[in-house]
Amino acid sequence: MSIVYRSAPQRGQIWQAWLAEHAADLPFYQWPETGDPQQVRYLVSWDIPDNLAQRFPNLQVIFSVGAGADQFTSEAVPPGVSIVRMIEPGLMDDMAAYITFSVVALHRGMPRYLEQQRQQQWLKHPAPAAADCRVGILGLGNLGQAAARVLNTLGYSCAGWSRTPKSVAGVTSYHGDPQLGEFLRQCQILVCLLPLTDQTRGILSQALFSQLPDGACLVHAGRGKQLNHQHLLEALDSGKLSRAVIDVTEPEPLPAGHPFWLHPKIWLTPHIASETHAESAVKVLLDNIRNHQQGKPMKGVIDKQRGY
Amino acid sequence: MSIVYRSAPQRGQIWQAWLAEHAADLPFYQWPETGDPQQVRYLVSWDIPDNLAQRFPNLQVIFSVGAGADQFTSEAVPPGVSIVRMIEPGLMDDMAAYITFSVVALHRGMPRYLEQQRQQQWLKHPAPAAADCRVGILGLGNLGQAAARVLNTLGYSCAGWSRTPKSVAGVTSYHGDPQLGEFLRQCQILVCLLPLTDQTRGILSQALFSQLPDGACLVHAGRGKQLNHQHLLEALDSGKLSRAVIDVTEPEPLPAGHPFWLHPKIWLTPHIASETHAESAVKVLLDNIRNHQQGKPMKGVIDKQRGY
Repeated sequence: MSIVYRSAPQRGQIWQAWLAEHAADLPFYQWPETGDPQQVRYLVSWDIPDNLAQRFPNLQVIFSVGAGADQFTSEAVPPGVSIVRMIEPGLMDDMAAYITFSVVALHRGMPRYLEQQRQQQWLKHPAPAAADCRVGILGLGNLGQAAARVLNTLGYSCAGWSRTPKSVAGVTSYHGDPQLGEFLRQCQILVCLLPLTDQTRGILSQALFSQLPDGACLVHAGRGKQLNHQHLLEALDSGKLSRAVIDVTEPEPLPAGHPFWLHPKIWLTPHIASETHAESAVKVLLDNIRNHQQGKPMKGVIDKQRGY
Repeated sequence: MSIVYRSAPQRGQIWQAWLAEHAADLPFYQWPETGDPQQVRYLVSWDIPDNLAQRFPNLQVIFSVGAGADQFTSEAVPPGVSIVRMIEPGLMDDMAAYITFSVVALHRGMPRYLEQQRQQQWLKHPAPAAADCRVGILGLGNLGQAAARVLNTLGYSCAGWSRTPKSVAGVTSYHGDPQLGEFLRQCQILVCLLPLTDQTRGILSQALFSQLPDGACLVHAGRGKQLNHQHLLEALDSGKLSRAVIDVTEPEPLPAGHPFWLHPKIWLTPHIASETHAESAVKVLLDNIRNHQQGKPMKGVIDKQRGY
């Protein structure tokens, strides 16, 4: 019964050393090493190697090294193999920090102040109190809830929207297509943390932006394929949206010459909002493997039907 | 028994309307109107008008409209007059948000990513987990504590230093001159929220920077007179410090041509970290006035001896 790891080698070394100490019964191989393929029960990866079913006939679980698992929803995953996404404190802290950084930047006009600095201009622009700045989070999973907790601590007024009803302390919750419009109408800063599914592909479009208040801002840290780039550019140019902070694009890296790079109303980061941290994540991985071995539920199992 | 308000007119109008409704027994005048000077018991201001004692012979309390009250420590304040600084939730949320924005920016390398954007470069720079990023807060008053609360929620490891011992949940506390060195030696990001006193004037100097780890960062949202500009520039040029976020300077506005403006390692904002918000602050003001009238302690009274 062994683990094959197929991702960043540096993290792999940390995991290998930690597991050797804490789970000596679980051989851990770093791709391309696999040991006896018949023994491989667990694959830890960001994507799927070719001929998965033939390669590891006794595979039981694929663990994503990241928060998303949309890359595993293809037919390449054998029916009996579970898919588990990463839910670990380092990833949640990272995302909550990125969202908080972006929301404060947009609420308090930081891009404008940094432009003023370049022009040697000392000029204040009063911002409303955080309690009067309405932030809306699309997607109330563990990352969305972590972001909402911090925004609440800072006094922001938070709403959230999810596919199914959720009850989150300090968050006014909306759910399902019928409530999306009501949710959007009150979002001055819209944060996207949705998983990528057939329903959310292209969701950040003119049809959605048109339901936001004029001059709203967007923070996008979901998945690149959710955003219609042309519609965002049009919304920024018309003033419908006033600014955007974008961490994910389609494709990645964003090609040279793409209009996002030098757009004065866009802050762009290279998909760094949230990283899996080796030290905290390996404990979550081992807990899940132990639960699986004992027939207990794992944390982060993907519902293949809904796709997240 | 009346109030004279001598600050931003817009806030004054909000306060006048609110107090007319909630404290009809307290006439409220906006400077230069004062009503009968003999009746003035409370002055709300950022600085001291000329001939204060002669002008309002029965004055009892000066309320600062901001978090600082160092401008009131001169001999211009008659001995029997109390000075009260502003401690209100809007000001605390603002400061906590500014500090969080700055700490996340420095920890996660946001200035570098925004530079990369201008160069159309998609390149990730892994950052340590928040738990491994040691933030130190100089000054553990109500603003420092509010910032620490949010940084804790984000998983940062927080230490704090204050003149007298403080016990703050989630913060490793140091106090007094003998413990300053030990505190500084472990600060990767140093945040200054100290009040301005004879002891803190010029405290952010080469002598202090030299005790930080190499490559540390500075966030300065205390008072302009605490920072030695030349020493900061030298520390940034030598690499002793790697970056700084600066909200307060001496003088303000910073003069054109000052080296901070175009320095590639400095983010400069025009003293906007924290603003008094009219709606939340007027309630605190009235609570304090009612407490004073009833002989109860007010919140934020300045100890004239220590200066804060």
